[in-house]
Amino acid sequence: MSASHPRAGGRIGQGDSIVPRWVKDAGRLALAPVIRAAQALHLTPNTVTVIGLLIVVVAAVMIANGLLLAGAVVLLAGSVLDAVDGALARLQGGGTPFGSFLDSTLDRVGEAVLYAGIVGYFLSTPEPALPVLAAILALIGSFMVSYSRARAEGIGVSAEVGMAPRTERLALVIGGIALAGLGWPAILVGILWLIVALTAATVVQRIWHVWRSTQSRLARSTSVSDTNEER
Amino acid sequence: MSASHPRAGGRIGQGDSIVPRWVKDAGRLALAPVIRAAQALHLTPNTVTVIGLLIVVVAAVMIANGLLLAGAVVLLAGSVLDAVDGALARLQGGGTPFGSFLDSTLDRVGEAVLYAGIVGYFLSTPEPALPVLAAILALIGSFMVSYSRARAEGIGVSAEVGMAPRTERLALVIGGIALAGLGWPAILVGILWLIVALTAATVVQRIWHVWRSTQSRLARSTSVSDTNEER
Repeated sequence: MSASHPRAGGRIGQGDSIVPRWVKDAGRLALAPVIRAAQALHLTPNTVTVIGLLIVVVAAVMIANGLLLAGAVVLLAGSVLDAVDGALARLQGGGTPFGSFLDSTLDRVGEAVLYAGIVGYFLSTPEPALPVLAAILALIGSFMVSYSRARAEGIGVSAEVGMAPRTERLALVIGGIALAGLGWPAILVGILWLIVALTAATVVQRIWHVWRSTQSRLARSTSVSDTNEER
Repeated sequence: MSASHPRAGGRIGQGDSIVPRWVKDAGRLALAPVIRAAQALHLTPNTVTVIGLLIVVVAAVMIANGLLLAGAVVLLAGSVLDAVDGALARLQGGGTPFGSFLDSTLDRVGEAVLYAGIVGYFLSTPEPALPVLAAILALIGSFMVSYSRARAEGIGVSAEVGMAPRTERLALVIGGIALAGLGWPAILVGILWLIVALTAATVVQRIWHVWRSTQSRLARSTSVSDTNEER
């Protein structure tokens, strides 16, 4: 397989996360008993991944119903489990390709459901149109960042380039939700527009990167049709 | 590269489309002069892909502003260009991996922007909450169908299984938008919920398929860690 995806092999579930790495490292130490409990309950890393998604869904429903501060806290709890599945996989001798697939697929579902929850919240405010647009475009932008990378790997190009990794995006969103809960919804809207700009720039950057990578690959092969026959 | 993706090699831009194949075949014959014009203007297939997206964006803005029937017609025009890029690529000696990447990446953007336009339309109706939820979940479902397949290919599994291919989904949506324009918005809402159900079932089906594929791959290899070392 010519596609390289450093996160898919040994570091399953560890790469992308809601929280900065040092928080995760600290959290991992503190979470050792939780991980041992999960092992005692015979929970697999994949089960933990699914439980993490369910917690994010609960958070999204809370946010849609205006419980912003509590929703932000539940969201943080779900993101901690995002670190547990990876740690558990390593303890059990390394992750599987399916675990890598499931983790990133359900990460996308979780991120999308979160934005849907934010849309639900804005729908109950007096002027929903622009905030809802911002949340939907942020959802689309976040999705396209992930899709462009996954699709690039499908043609054998690593496209990890880009601003606005998921960690930073979701830290921003959690902060924005909490601030909206404290009475400043305009800050959440501003954060969503920032995410729209960062993700749009990242997608353009990735398309450009794939273009350049395939051009240099073309230059190394004899002709376009040879490149196609390789597939 | 162990991932097989029949559409990515020889049939770039031809596979997924808004319209049934027989319409495309008929359209391709009728579009021969358009394709020749594009060649005379030195338009590349990738340029045609970008123009197709711009037309879909125009359609989405029209739909968001309540111009439903006209928007549906413009959307159909954009979907015709989706066939032209592939035909042009074949005339010019076959598509490139970058063309395949750009085509499917911009297809996702176009589909997402279309759902955002539908959300915009529902926001101007008296009871937007449930229709907006349906449109967002249909957007998420459609995205997850594409993402799960692209991500599966990243780990070397072909995941084309599933109901609700993009062709059928978008034919349904275009029909629903036109019917909403004729005074039956409830049909569009029903179609969106149908798409939510079909795409959710497809994603579950694909996760299950990847699980089974990786299990049988594991059975053929000596151990989990060997499988990981391959990466």
